[in-house]
Amino acid sequence: MERLSVSKATLGRLPEYLRVLRELPQDEFSNISATTLAKKLELGEVQVRKDLAAVSGAGKPKLGYVTSKLIEKLEETLGYNSLTEAVLVGAGKLGRALLEYGEFQRYGVKITAAFDSNEQVINLNGKTEILPMNQFDDYCKKHEVKLGIITVGEGSAQLVCDLMIKSKITAIWNFAPCKLVIPEGILLQNENLALSLAHLNNQLKNQDLEEQNGRKGI
Amino acid sequence: MERLSVSKATLGRLPEYLRVLRELPQDEFSNISATTLAKKLELGEVQVRKDLAAVSGAGKPKLGYVTSKLIEKLEETLGYNSLTEAVLVGAGKLGRALLEYGEFQRYGVKITAAFDSNEQVINLNGKTEILPMNQFDDYCKKHEVKLGIITVGEGSAQLVCDLMIKSKITAIWNFAPCKLVIPEGILLQNENLALSLAHLNNQLKNQDLEEQNGRKGI
Repeated sequence: MERLSVSKATLGRLPEYLRVLRELPQDEFSNISATTLAKKLELGEVQVRKDLAAVSGAGKPKLGYVTSKLIEKLEETLGYNSLTEAVLVGAGKLGRALLEYGEFQRYGVKITAAFDSNEQVINLNGKTEILPMNQFDDYCKKHEVKLGIITVGEGSAQLVCDLMIKSKITAIWNFAPCKLVIPEGILLQNENLALSLAHLNNQLKNQDLEEQNGRKGI
Repeated sequence: MERLSVSKATLGRLPEYLRVLRELPQDEFSNISATTLAKKLELGEVQVRKDLAAVSGAGKPKLGYVTSKLIEKLEETLGYNSLTEAVLVGAGKLGRALLEYGEFQRYGVKITAAFDSNEQVINLNGKTEILPMNQFDDYCKKHEVKLGIITVGEGSAQLVCDLMIKSKITAIWNFAPCKLVIPEGILLQNENLALSLAHLNNQLKNQDLEEQNGRKGI
């Protein structure tokens, strides 16, 4: 299987492409051009051509893309045909919020199990079963899980990370606000929620300042 | 007050700069060079020079930066001296997870109130008081809140967004997986958690494929 590298920005737009394409009347749109698709998506044509090229290569002159093939390629890129199984460690509020977040499947990932060391959390009557940590290694190996999500606190994040790597997980999504030490070959993505908010706050402050300066005529 | 524009990446490193600088023995480090700081932070020197330039301008040749002044500048950029007050609407699991997330203050933002339309949620015995929606407008105007966080579902996000704008909020951090329509002059930052996970999944798949090809000698 050929696999093209798709940027995060492109990836973010693909579910919308898919939605629009699926809603087209099939008899009318057996083919679609990048221009038409761009209009329907309210996106720039250059952008759309670039996105489509990353997913499916270039369209044919005058014909554009075969709609059904393009849908297939989008589904493949988004992993619809092969949902990646992920596990989560740390079923506190954030962990449970992620468990209930319905959007992951639209992007090809399903959190199939959650683990916690806290007895009280394990016995919660939620939708997803929360398992005790001593079952973690067995579960991951049995299900060949490659993707782990860390939603424990700063204090135990490295411990959980090490455990994940020992259980053959190779990609880690970390929400704990700390630097994890990982061996080469492991993919690590840190999610710093505070940073996103700080960035917005920074823009807000600059905007306020511009307004103040505007008022003073600076 | 002069305010320099600081990128999100730089902003993310600043709390660490601040921590390192605060821990220095004052008598030994009344001044510090970018080179020394880079070593302590285990970051590239070019990187550190760029970050510091964005926060505090260039250091003096041979002398570097006056440590106390640099700390002041970092605190100012991170908003330590003037915490921005934020409100949150939608006190479900994600909303409550954000309320308990301790990191925001390190970046100059404090969520001071949460709102929900659900009576059951309002009466939760949590650390933060959750207020009914009919108090939202009054609260925001009284406290001159400029920053709003949306953690309601897709179905009511636009409604909440409109309400925030009506209550004079000018910067919105949106977790609902939908496109919000906003007037010009309003700052909107969409947080797509699924997208981060999808990106990691995409990298994971590419890695798996490389390994397979490697084994086949492709």
